[in-house]
Amino acid sequence: MNPGNSVLLTDAYQLTMVKGYFDRGMEETAVFEFYVRRLPAQRNFLVAAGLEQCLEYLENLHFSADELDWLGKHFGYDQKFLDYLNALKFTGDVVALPEGTVFFANEPMIRLVAPLPLVQLVESRIINLLQYQTMVASKAARCVLMGPGKSLVDFGMRRAHGAEASLLSSRASYIAGFTGTATVLAGKAFGIPVSGTMAHSFVQSHDSEIEAFRDFAKSNPDNAVFLIDTYDTANGARIVVKLAPELKAQGITVKAVRLDSGDLAEHARQVRKILDAGGLPDVRILASGNLDEYALEKLAGAPIDGYGIGTRMNTSNDAPYFECAYKLQEYKGVPRRKHSEGKSTWPGRKQVYRHYDPAGKMMEDVMTLESDVLPGKALMVPVMRQGKRVNPPEPLDALRARTERELAALPDILKKLEPALSYKVKISPTLQKLADEMDAALSSKADSR
Amino acid sequence: MNPGNSVLLTDAYQLTMVKGYFDRGMEETAVFEFYVRRLPAQRNFLVAAGLEQCLEYLENLHFSADELDWLGKHFGYDQKFLDYLNALKFTGDVVALPEGTVFFANEPMIRLVAPLPLVQLVESRIINLLQYQTMVASKAARCVLMGPGKSLVDFGMRRAHGAEASLLSSRASYIAGFTGTATVLAGKAFGIPVSGTMAHSFVQSHDSEIEAFRDFAKSNPDNAVFLIDTYDTANGARIVVKLAPELKAQGITVKAVRLDSGDLAEHARQVRKILDAGGLPDVRILASGNLDEYALEKLAGAPIDGYGIGTRMNTSNDAPYFECAYKLQEYKGVPRRKHSEGKSTWPGRKQVYRHYDPAGKMMEDVMTLESDVLPGKALMVPVMRQGKRVNPPEPLDALRARTERELAALPDILKKLEPALSYKVKISPTLQKLADEMDAALSSKADSR
Repeated sequence: MNPGNSVLLTDAYQLTMVKGYFDRGMEETAVFEFYVRRLPAQRNFLVAAGLEQCLEYLENLHFSADELDWLGKHFGYDQKFLDYLNALKFTGDVVALPEGTVFFANEPMIRLVAPLPLVQLVESRIINLLQYQTMVASKAARCVLMGPGKSLVDFGMRRAHGAEASLLSSRASYIAGFTGTATVLAGKAFGIPVSGTMAHSFVQSHDSEIEAFRDFAKSNPDNAVFLIDTYDTANGARIVVKLAPELKAQGITVKAVRLDSGDLAEHARQVRKILDAGGLPDVRILASGNLDEYALEKLAGAPIDGYGIGTRMNTSNDAPYFECAYKLQEYKGVPRRKHSEGKSTWPGRKQVYRHYDPAGKMMEDVMTLESDVLPGKALMVPVMRQGKRVNPPEPLDALRARTERELAALPDILKKLEPALSYKVKISPTLQKLADEMDAALSSKADSR
Repeated sequence: MNPGNSVLLTDAYQLTMVKGYFDRGMEETAVFEFYVRRLPAQRNFLVAAGLEQCLEYLENLHFSADELDWLGKHFGYDQKFLDYLNALKFTGDVVALPEGTVFFANEPMIRLVAPLPLVQLVESRIINLLQYQTMVASKAARCVLMGPGKSLVDFGMRRAHGAEASLLSSRASYIAGFTGTATVLAGKAFGIPVSGTMAHSFVQSHDSEIEAFRDFAKSNPDNAVFLIDTYDTANGARIVVKLAPELKAQGITVKAVRLDSGDLAEHARQVRKILDAGGLPDVRILASGNLDEYALEKLAGAPIDGYGIGTRMNTSNDAPYFECAYKLQEYKGVPRRKHSEGKSTWPGRKQVYRHYDPAGKMMEDVMTLESDVLPGKALMVPVMRQGKRVNPPEPLDALRARTERELAALPDILKKLEPALSYKVKISPTLQKLADEMDAALSSKADSR
């Protein structure tokens, strides 16, 4: 069973609430939006990702016979309610930021409009899918900005949080501008370019480095990339120089060496000299080992051609979750606003308009109600109507190209790793007025209790 | 497709290396061990978890026809190698720490002994499975220590990193001592007790709080738990007092109220007073909202009976990955040791012996070679022989009971949240001697180059 495909991958309260709505016939149209409340201190912008998986989830939403049987036994639901669940399909409308779009705090990433029980039921998994990929794409985009012209490969499957995170972090980092992944299944599932060479164990299981490199090259003639730091990095580079002519005679070209430990910049300079002096100026130097955008910034001057970036990107280690929320914005045509301390929401169906300066750089966003059409580029677009996709899935390379354009349009200050002043997201007079009216109505209601 | 079941959920270099081993007939026995190199500053001990999923993975390891077809096309493998992959099954021996065991840096969690290509191939997924659940169990155990006598429920599905993390974090936190989870699928998959009540949206979609509570109780008569902070917490509590007699007349007992925002301790005290004064001393107070072990420590004196703990536990937010490694320890009967800077390993097949003081508290561990039998409790036990389990899977409640015993045996200093001096893990003279001999042999080899 793929847990990601089960409608039971949800919080129990979604089911208890759906039961409540069902019993009272509360099936009128509800509007939920998902947004990030605050950007983590280490993020100046976010990159939207995960929409495709949300749409697949909504298209396939159903209760299986086995799941209904289990719910009947363990939640004590009667046949009438089980029949209702059995018939559930996602029939709503969805508006969202296309994947690869840069966005900021409070701006909705997605809006679902459907009968109340449906939009309630899907909450947990929609958040689960959007938060993670957006987190990874946003972290990966920072790496891309710190490694211009370098090839960046996702190396982090092993320390990602489980199978789906492994797979979806390959996807999210590729959208953000990574050049490929080491995760084989991500190649099969998404068509992402896959690359991989050797681990230290390969060297250690041979009696010498030169034997290990020779064996590897013969078995993988198009992929002669050698890990040279198992014992002594400079010596590893000299072994490559020694071996290269022998391999060349067999038609094998050494493509690259990889460094995975120690002072990478220092080792890279030393190795570059050894390779150049040994007649191997075209052999690239790759580096890996606990890298992230901060390490890349420091390594900017080093003669390193490509990086394997893993764990910290795949786990978004410095911001492993977002303060994000999926909130009811409207029910039965009436906007709703929540007032829990420190957690107020902007009510209604919203749209965001983006403004650019003459050079094409982002200047400011204006958030307003969908009904209040304003100048600027509207960021949210319809993606599903009555449960059907508006367009077929966008190819991954189109999403990647979008991110590239978006990153190019970022104000320079936001591209830096240091926390910057927030990008300006204005609240329109129309939206402010609605929020104020709702506050006033609520306090007068409270007074009259 | 469940990505967790695919043998292609691995790093590409595992396949390129397996190809290298296959071509040279390097299929003799290799020994790999997985261990955590360093404990994160915020962890004084770790709790082993994830072994069961590793054993399932090894038992089911195979290449499907579809996967072989894809590899032939995209990796250019010839039929001979594809036939070899097609025939692969895990036939090795596994020794491991039982789930729920407390352990420390450098102590092996698992040892795999099998033909080299097999133990190489499974590396990425074994790390992926062990690291995540161990990380969550270790974080959850800290919450358990800070919430003695409280019920702790996993609330974090939505912000866990994807589907498998959602499911396995329910499992890992339950093993660590949580009382249940909100994730429905974890109930179905593992038999973990599931609980859930209502979200703010349920309250907001009704015209008033009292209506929302009344509807909810009627639809979920055995689960009358009300979220009372949507508008004003104290007022929410007064509404519960007002509603309780009406529900009682219908045979419905209010079980609890939940607080999800603001100053939880202050609100809990206020709400406790209102409920007690209103004749509801048996209504429990539950709290949730960005909680972790630090929050629980601060809330120790508050009249709160149970906690929903989510995001920070499920993501292990203050240590979202471990410095961990799966390393070759022996090949063809010869111990191996890696020397990359700062990443040396202890060679050979190892065992750990634990010593206790007369009161049953853990005193120190001694790590040695498996062949060097010492006094103390041996921590690693055989779990698989020639690809078959030694014992059937342990029930989850047995794992939970083990964790409880282990936590009870922890030295008090390690139970605190503040970083403590490391627990003593001694290296036996036998193991030290082997490491020294290997270092000496390596440097004489380097000298003679």
